[in-house]
Amino acid sequence: MRLLIALGGNAIKQANEEGSTEEQFANCEKTARVIAQIVKRMGKNDRLLITHGNGPQVGNIMIQQDTTKEIIPAQRMDVVGAMTQGQIGYMIEQSLLNAFTESRINTRVCTVVTQTIVNRNDPEFFDENASKPVGNYMREEEAKKLKKAHPEYIIKKVKPDEKGWRRVVPSPEPIQQVEGDIIKTLVDLGVIVIASGGGGIPVIKTRKGYRGVEAVIDKDLGAERLAEITEMDVLLILTDIERVKLNYGKEDEKDVERMSVDEAEHYLKEGQFLKGSMEPKVKACIRFIRKGGKRAIIATLDKAKDALEGKSGTEIFP
Amino acid sequence: MRLLIALGGNAIKQANEEGSTEEQFANCEKTARVIAQIVKRMGKNDRLLITHGNGPQVGNIMIQQDTTKEIIPAQRMDVVGAMTQGQIGYMIEQSLLNAFTESRINTRVCTVVTQTIVNRNDPEFFDENASKPVGNYMREEEAKKLKKAHPEYIIKKVKPDEKGWRRVVPSPEPIQQVEGDIIKTLVDLGVIVIASGGGGIPVIKTRKGYRGVEAVIDKDLGAERLAEITEMDVLLILTDIERVKLNYGKEDEKDVERMSVDEAEHYLKEGQFLKGSMEPKVKACIRFIRKGGKRAIIATLDKAKDALEGKSGTEIFP
Repeated sequence: MRLLIALGGNAIKQANEEGSTEEQFANCEKTARVIAQIVKRMGKNDRLLITHGNGPQVGNIMIQQDTTKEIIPAQRMDVVGAMTQGQIGYMIEQSLLNAFTESRINTRVCTVVTQTIVNRNDPEFFDENASKPVGNYMREEEAKKLKKAHPEYIIKKVKPDEKGWRRVVPSPEPIQQVEGDIIKTLVDLGVIVIASGGGGIPVIKTRKGYRGVEAVIDKDLGAERLAEITEMDVLLILTDIERVKLNYGKEDEKDVERMSVDEAEHYLKEGQFLKGSMEPKVKACIRFIRKGGKRAIIATLDKAKDALEGKSGTEIFP
Repeated sequence: MRLLIALGGNAIKQANEEGSTEEQFANCEKTARVIAQIVKRMGKNDRLLITHGNGPQVGNIMIQQDTTKEIIPAQRMDVVGAMTQGQIGYMIEQSLLNAFTESRINTRVCTVVTQTIVNRNDPEFFDENASKPVGNYMREEEAKKLKKAHPEYIIKKVKPDEKGWRRVVPSPEPIQQVEGDIIKTLVDLGVIVIASGGGGIPVIKTRKGYRGVEAVIDKDLGAERLAEITEMDVLLILTDIERVKLNYGKEDEKDVERMSVDEAEHYLKEGQFLKGSMEPKVKACIRFIRKGGKRAIIATLDKAKDALEGKSGTEIFP
């Protein structure tokens, strides 16, 4: 088994928490114990690669930067993404090392700062298409003030809830991880690698080489590209929902235990899955199986081990 | 040649700059072109490892965190160190990749988040010994206010200038990089690795495993430990001073082109080198040669290539 685990935000910070260092480490330690259980059952030739989200951490740094921008220049979003890769990678890595010591597992762990190439002509880079909200909700007045201060910002009344105005940034399709080859080399050597945090730092290719852009890559779609380039055969996406639901919120709502990639594609086209939430996860699973992956599973962190054994979560198969 | 380059702060941010993303990338690009010139002359079996400082970046994040601490929890210093490793590692790595493309060099580059073990009983952990100033100078009144808000902070009238009060943190001796083995594996494969930024994230070993601490590791002493564990034979410390000086500021001040490790140790004992500045650099060089290193050089970034050829800088030899 060559397994890629994509950790959801709750693996690092619970929605009801402030996000202190101690809280975040407590979550990472819990996450690490779950992963240690999985590693304990892995054979000598099995491999593990881990990726994670970074939304709340990016949001916090952006607020901190914005508050102090008169005295300290705010860093561009690609740089902020890189900061969170260091931050979260460190916390997960240290927690894993400690959980492995506790469980008498002898494996090396390594966090690799990762850039992900996106297409500079991706439709998301046209203002009207940019889809990823960042920062807080604002009233119209605040929104206008922010736009005046930052004419380059895209500020929109956000769908689907339209509770108010928000800054939105492009969320382009990930194409490929720049460091994919090195990550694969490490994984092949049996190192557990933490990589492509937050989907990867978004970069475009220019005549002068790579250049970071103000954008956010969907973490699960980024995970899928990473799984491709490192030749994983199992993609496990962990979130806070136990199983994918059909007819969500309706009378005939039901959980899906297993679905073929064709079925999944059919449901996706029907619009069964919430955009920006379950939709990109299912999309990542479909893409992974279409590219030759054997199993794609969406499950909760708590039941990750069960999900790998087919006892929890939703599995998408070829 | 197995070469470790330790980049000084000016390789990333000039002292007179604010530190915007664009400024920092411009510096990193200049630095990367210097490194590309060196790599261009390296043979097939030569290896390169890079480390860097993070002082100004840590300082900025700490101010940002402190300003917004009522709404967003400030992260512990080890976590802030990890953030700067992601940030600076990304900027250097991308700049290197682009400089290599420009110079038609085909080499992989990888940034590894790095923890450095320190001794929990290091004298620096006793308040009266803590020696590394962080953050701004304060008047006595401000200092008292900060101490009241953070009783755990060590706030001192700072030597040698005693211009005012500052927060100080421990600067313990680095012992070993947790990821040293993986970094060596990558270097041996011919990957150019960026690691141990800011001396590494300071961690202590406890009964429960590694734990981050509020401290700052000297970047050059950290570089030396990294050079040991990865079996480098040349340590090149880049700074903004062309050569080490003896009798600094006196009538008989003179530049040193070469000195044996015994001579260097003699001068060190005489107190020839400024604490927190040239002293740890010379100390790192001495330690490196005593542990079996072949050449240790202190030079400027601009003349790094010349320094490797013996035409600039100060070389310390066995």
